[in-house]
Amino acid sequence: MEELPAGLRLVDGHCHGVVAGPLTEDAFALLATEASTPAPPGASHLDGPLGLAIRRWCAPVLGLPAHAPVAEYLARRTEFGADAARRLLRAAGLAALFVDTGIRLPAADWLDGDELGAAAGARVAEVVRLEAVAERVAAAGVAAADFAPAFAEALGAATRTAVAVKSVLAYRHGFAIDPSRPSRQAVTDAAGEWLRGGAPRLTDAVLLRYLLWCGVDTGLPIQLHTGFGDRSLALPRADPSLLRDWYELVEPSGVSVVLLHCYPYHRQAGWLAHVYPHVYVDVGLTLGHVGAQAAPVLAEFLELAPFTKVLYSSDAYGLPELYLVGAAQFRRALTHVLSDWIVAGALTAANADRIAYGVAADNARRLYRAPVT
Amino acid sequence: MEELPAGLRLVDGHCHGVVAGPLTEDAFALLATEASTPAPPGASHLDGPLGLAIRRWCAPVLGLPAHAPVAEYLARRTEFGADAARRLLRAAGLAALFVDTGIRLPAADWLDGDELGAAAGARVAEVVRLEAVAERVAAAGVAAADFAPAFAEALGAATRTAVAVKSVLAYRHGFAIDPSRPSRQAVTDAAGEWLRGGAPRLTDAVLLRYLLWCGVDTGLPIQLHTGFGDRSLALPRADPSLLRDWYELVEPSGVSVVLLHCYPYHRQAGWLAHVYPHVYVDVGLTLGHVGAQAAPVLAEFLELAPFTKVLYSSDAYGLPELYLVGAAQFRRALTHVLSDWIVAGALTAANADRIAYGVAADNARRLYRAPVT
Amino acid sequence: MEELPAGLRLVDGHCHGVVAGPLTEDAFALLATEASTPAPPGASHLDGPLGLAIRRWCAPVLGLPAHAPVAEYLARRTEFGADAARRLLRAAGLAALFVDTGIRLPAADWLDGDELGAAAGARVAEVVRLEAVAERVAAAGVAAADFAPAFAEALGAATRTAVAVKSVLAYRHGFAIDPSRPSRQAVTDAAGEWLRGGAPRLTDAVLLRYLLWCGVDTGLPIQLHTGFGDRSLALPRADPSLLRDWYELVEPSGVSVVLLHCYPYHRQAGWLAHVYPHVYVDVGLTLGHVGAQAAPVLAEFLELAPFTKVLYSSDAYGLPELYLVGAAQFRRALTHVLSDWIVAGALTAANADRIAYGVAADNARRLYRAPVT
Repeated sequence: MEELPAGLRLVDGHCHGVVAGPLTEDAFALLATEASTPAPPGASHLDGPLGLAIRRWCAPVLGLPAHAPVAEYLARRTEFGADAARRLLRAAGLAALFVDTGIRLPAADWLDGDELGAAAGARVAEVVRLEAVAERVAAAGVAAADFAPAFAEALGAATRTAVAVKSVLAYRHGFAIDPSRPSRQAVTDAAGEWLRGGAPRLTDAVLLRYLLWCGVDTGLPIQLHTGFGDRSLALPRADPSLLRDWYELVEPSGVSVVLLHCYPYHRQAGWLAHVYPHVYVDVGLTLGHVGAQAAPVLAEFLELAPFTKVLYSSDAYGLPELYLVGAAQFRRALTHVLSDWIVAGALTAANADRIAYGVAADNARRLYRAPVT
Repeated sequence: MEELPAGLRLVDGHCHGVVAGPLTEDAFALLATEASTPAPPGASHLDGPLGLAIRRWCAPVLGLPAHAPVAEYLARRTEFGADAARRLLRAAGLAALFVDTGIRLPAADWLDGDELGAAAGARVAEVVRLEAVAERVAAAGVAAADFAPAFAEALGAATRTAVAVKSVLAYRHGFAIDPSRPSRQAVTDAAGEWLRGGAPRLTDAVLLRYLLWCGVDTGLPIQLHTGFGDRSLALPRADPSLLRDWYELVEPSGVSVVLLHCYPYHRQAGWLAHVYPHVYVDVGLTLGHVGAQAAPVLAEFLELAPFTKVLYSSDAYGLPELYLVGAAQFRRALTHVLSDWIVAGALTAANADRIAYGVAADNARRLYRAPVT
Repeated sequence: MEELPAGLRLVDGHCHGVVAGPLTEDAFALLATEASTPAPPGASHLDGPLGLAIRRWCAPVLGLPAHAPVAEYLARRTEFGADAARRLLRAAGLAALFVDTGIRLPAADWLDGDELGAAAGARVAEVVRLEAVAERVAAAGVAAADFAPAFAEALGAATRTAVAVKSVLAYRHGFAIDPSRPSRQAVTDAAGEWLRGGAPRLTDAVLLRYLLWCGVDTGLPIQLHTGFGDRSLALPRADPSLLRDWYELVEPSGVSVVLLHCYPYHRQAGWLAHVYPHVYVDVGLTLGHVGAQAAPVLAEFLELAPFTKVLYSSDAYGLPELYLVGAAQFRRALTHVLSDWIVAGALTAANADRIAYGVAADNARRLYRAPVT
């Protein structure tokens, strides 16, 4: 396999909105890292694998040589105005984007709906973040005793045309939870405490579990943040293998669970996809961030997971560059891994093509039942 | 090293019986996965790394091209009848098989003793599964107060000609246990409770610890399931580094401990083999399952473990194919890793040969004191 | 990048003294392993990746072919007398050594100060081990109520010219601790108990936390042992991601934290360096020990960590060989990784040079504010 067929457009199964226009270097750098604070003096968040990947893949799309210096790249990006975002998004070669709308920047030129799809030349569908719906319900005013039905109703309304729901339990509490569906009384009690406190960022384990189980009730696939992210999560509690008892309880519902990101627990995630019929793995944030290591890391994702249960997403957020970097790294890494396997005699070119089309798009189409052509 | 010398026959230090005759596609697929349920509609358990490896290595042994389609392969396999198993087993190139007889399918054509050895052209010796002996003792009828001596006696009888004992503590409870030998009274109490409940699948931590310590008393090496397997284990509790306090307590006995499988904790296992004189690592189930990734995964096993303490096994169960896939993947991966190291100048061809013979057979011969020539 | 520029001298940011003169084979082997007991009969601690690396890199420095047999190498080493150490240390190509003086062998020819620097042709600065200072304070005689100020004063005196402090919390207790600074009363109480017991090896969690916080008070970077080492640590409790709450609390002080060794949790460590502005990763003990796998393991260190926050050290202890092996493996691995990345188009040669100079020396110079030219 020389490279993925040029006509193979990806389904990006988990992503976010972007700022359409120019950004300062500081703002740009903070969107190109999982760090939350400016880099120390003399350093830059762009001095790492993701920074190199941005310069490699994005500079040519704006007419600069690959690896052009950051300052030059940002100047050119500003010259292009909103057209930069359009070019970068188009270059990602996407068939569809499934956008988690539960987090956004307060930017006037934020794109996350049809305009994002138009810019990317791709279909858009929504992924509904459970915790964001709960926080909206609280913000709108609700009595503790009404929280349970009010959330369920709001989620039903929010997911009417959605393709999946999404949980950030990993950030809010971690995976060491009682896996069972909490009782109505327990939810009311927990909601009471949360609402009395002014409904801050939701971290109560009972409520988070309730949200998850309402997610199951929608019948849609549930995307779970697992593995690394920003520093507001405790990494050891984001190991997806800690949620085994919950996967067991969910299985009879027929609902699918998608483990996003996973790194550095992606081998654990692959095993979960191997033994649980309803568990899938999605490379998510990982391949963009690990730069030139994308191929060996992707190969590790593929050690135990059935090829029909591995998915692509970029987790792009804020920068249109992250759509392109995710897609380009994924295409390159998948080509690299499958070519190596063909050369080693491990599979035929026809097998490899089927795996490539599956991971790039067909597995997502089947899972999310999305009308993507 | 072009490849392992053709005459180098492997000692397969941990394996199981096989079904000698034809199988339906569904039955075949369920034996070629750690999943316990049929694949979802449209998917197949053979659509993964192990499925590819079966088609690669086994089809030629039955006169088909490598990577022949599954349906064609299974048809040919049926034509060959019991001869298919014999051909596949022979092709594995084994000097000896150490068979865990504690788990089997209720198939009339199940092979796990001398017939298996005859089919493979290899010596056979037995590995005695501790939990299976305990469950037999209970099934035969025993008073709670007699359980402790009755088990010890039954184990003594069962291991008279065995080369090792085996524990599935990882499946039954996980490694977060009190490492000490339980008191006679504690065993009697726990046995009472277990027996009163009808002696179901043994999961009581006190009894499992008692079994382990009786295993130590046999003086034979103790094989431990560690790392991945089917979904009845909790992966984080199968990390072999959690059993450190038990390794400390076992050390004075002079008994050796073999960590089987290990993935994705094989680096942890390598460290244990590095620092504990009586701890060994065995690639087990892993290399067959990870398909084309067998070489990098094997290399990770070799990062810290002394070369004299790394062992080969297939963990084959049910399908004769798994004997061949395990052996072929191991030969190819070991050749690949050692060749790369020679080319990089990291060792000489003579060093590499000694490592290869050690890991493939000599380390097992020395450890299990098995009369294998 | 063909190889690191010959003139690029490394800063070895964490190392120890060495025995300058000849050693018996048994003594040599025990210094070339993290095992604490002699190898089983018929085996040798040199039969592993580190043993191969010693024969590869050190034999030529003593005029033998690479991979000369161990006996021949040791005979030649004895012939050279103290000159062997000098040759091996020089061959490491070091600009500076930061020596943890808190652990040493009772050998008359132990080198760990200016003499070590002179032998290596490099500057030497000290890293002060917190636990060793505490044990000295206790040995000198102190009342429980005076322990807190006496330790703080002794640490102040000990670090007057030091470049860093070092904690072995991983060995003494593990990372599952209350991260907060303990109260004066709690320290006095814990000191009372410790001193009444004769002040054995310090393992009390309150005192260890107090030491850490006094380390923060010095303003110097704090080096933490993380990941593998000898068997006196419990590996799962040495995962640096377990200390997250402590990193959060330390951050406002402006003090930097250096995660040493890290393996097999080096991916976790890389994430910590990515998200925490004051956290660094140091390859430490790892690259020497993993032999021919040094390049893939180093590449894993570089998956998430900013290139400005990755550091080199050897953790050499006892054998001058370990200085050379650490340095040679690091140079080779870094060259290999960066060359592969250049070939793959992931960065330019100029980028690669900057990364190489940073990781090899410049990052350490900046972090430790050391006057190294």
